[in-house]
Parts: sequence; C-alpha cells; structure tokens
Amino acid sequence: MAEIVDVFKEAFRRHAAGVVVVTAMDTDGVPAGFTATSLASLAVNPPMATFNMARTSSTWAAIENTEHVAIHMLGVHNRQLAATMSGEHSLRFVGDHWSAGPFGLPILRGVTAWLLGRIVVRLPVAGSAVVVVEVEGGSIETDTEPLMYHHRNYRQLGDLL
Amino acid sequence: MAEIVDVFKEAFRRHAAGVVVVTAMDTDGVPAGFTATSLASLAVNPPMATFNMARTSSTWAAIENTEHVAIHMLGVHNRQLAATMSGEHSLRFVGDHWSAGPFGLPILRGVTAWLLGRIVVRLPVAGSAVVVVEVEGGSIETDTEPLMYHHRNYRQLGDLL
Repeated sequence: MAEIVDVFKEAFRRHAAGVVVVTAMDTDGVPAGFTATSLASLAVNPPMATFNMARTSSTWAAIENTEHVAIHMLGVHNRQLAATMSGEHSLRFVGDHWSAGPFGLPILRGVTAWLLGRIVVRLPVAGSAVVVVEVEGGSIETDTEPLMYHHRNYRQLGDLL
Repeated sequence: MAEIVDVFKEAFRRHAAGVVVVTAMDTDGVPAGFTATSLASLAVNPPMATFNMARTSSTWAAIENTEHVAIHMLGVHNRQLAATMSGEHSLRFVGDHWSAGPFGLPILRGVTAWLLGRIVVRLPVAGSAVVVVEVEGGSIETDTEPLMYHHRNYRQLGDLL
C-alpha cells in the first residue's frame, strides 16, 4: 500500500493546477477560507463546479454548515494572497485584502475572477469530501495570467516551446 | 441567467489546469478515452481522485459500465496525444501510442505518469457526473514539465517572474 501511495503522490506532484481560494462564513459569522488546487468545472447549463477538501481541514466546519461559498481564481500577482490563505488560520482575514460580499461572504480583492456558489452536494468520501456548487453570481476582475501550483511550488504559465 | 453563464465561462477561461487522459474499456471490449482538465486529488489514505465529465460524452457509456479506468498525466511532449484523445472518436486508438495494461485498460505510452483507478462513486449532477476513483496502481514514467490548458490553448509552465 505504501508503494501505491508513493506512486499516487509522485503522479500528482507531476500534475499542475490553477490556484483558487474558497471562502465561507462560519455559523458564528466569522470568515473562513483556504487555498485549493482542486477546482474543476462540472457543467455549464446550469453552471456548476466542484472542489475537494479534507474533512480534517480547519475550514470544513464552515463549509459543512453554510449554503454559499465564494470561489476566487488567483493570478500571478496574488501569490501573497495564496500564502496568506494557506497559512496560520487566525491570520487569514487580518488585513484589508477582503470585504464582505453577497450573503456576507468574504470576497478577496484583486483576484482574476470570483464566483458565488450555492452548495448543492457535499459527498463525504473517506476523510475527505467532494463539494458541488451551482454558480449563482460572480465577477470578472483583474486580467492577468493564472497562478499555478506544481511540485510544491508556485509557478506561472509560459508558451509552449 | 445568460449573464451568469458568461461570468462562469470567463472565470474558467482564466483558470488553468493540467491535462490528463482518462481511458476505459467499453462493454464490447473496445477502448474508449478522452482528454480532461478536471482531475483533482481527493485523499491520500486511501489514495483517491476525482474527475468530471458530461454524460453526453461519447465516452460516458464506457465509464458508466466499467469498474476500472486509467488516468494519464500528460507532459509538454504529449501535445499530439492530447489532441488525438480529444479528436475524432473513431481515431483515438488508431496507432501504436497505447497498449493493453491491467484489466485490458488502454495505457498510453510516454506520459509522465499513469494511475489505475477503481471507480467507487459516479455522482450524476445535471447532465454531468463526478467520478470518484480509488487508486490501486500506476506507474511513474517520463519526467517532463506538465502540459497545461488555459484560455483554449495548450501551454506549459514557467517560473514566476
């Protein structure tokens, strides 16, 4: 089993992904959020998307108990934001990098785009969950190249050689 | 509604993703497969991953009726493979770019890694489906930078400026 886990980890280290931040309000009205690389489009009509997360995540309680999330696409200029939103939990919303948006959701400033998602399915699998959202709103913001994550490093895109 | 779909589409055009190919055998023993940008890690113990697809896809019948799939991570040198596996359905397995692997699954040559997945959940949502696999095997292959897809173009990674 250890060997399969090693192959799995190395295969995913070779897979690169765009970086997003998912935010929500917890039941006490405190903002919560995390940096993710699992966002995927699911359908266009109606517009739907998925993201995956560990149910041991500090943000799971908020995602488990809320109806809406905001999903932010990050650009190359948002590297600090990615670090902040994956760093110390109590410091993620300290600063003026966000403001309250629809349903009081924390909306991050200066991202390339954000989407308002209504959670339609939370599918628990092992210690993780697949979260399916229907997109009900959003906004297109700063037009820059996307921030990427690969082999534990932040990267950006280049043209094919 | 049209406006939300436009925001959704533009937000996902700004999101970049790694390119993979999912293959399966259909019930007649004919190989099937498609290029996807929706692969995401779900859990490490046990190793699990998800991908999304339209149930109108020519490959859905195979995915719906099989227990195993192979998921291939593509590198920058696999651009033609990505095109072949997203092109004309009847031509996807014409050539020597694959061979039969575990459970007879089509395994593509020269990818950066491939994983053998046992399907544990097919979650139909609207006209699409989330497919959850538990990874039971796989192999690490050619070590190159990942092939990326962004704004309808194939790209590769570069270092952050």
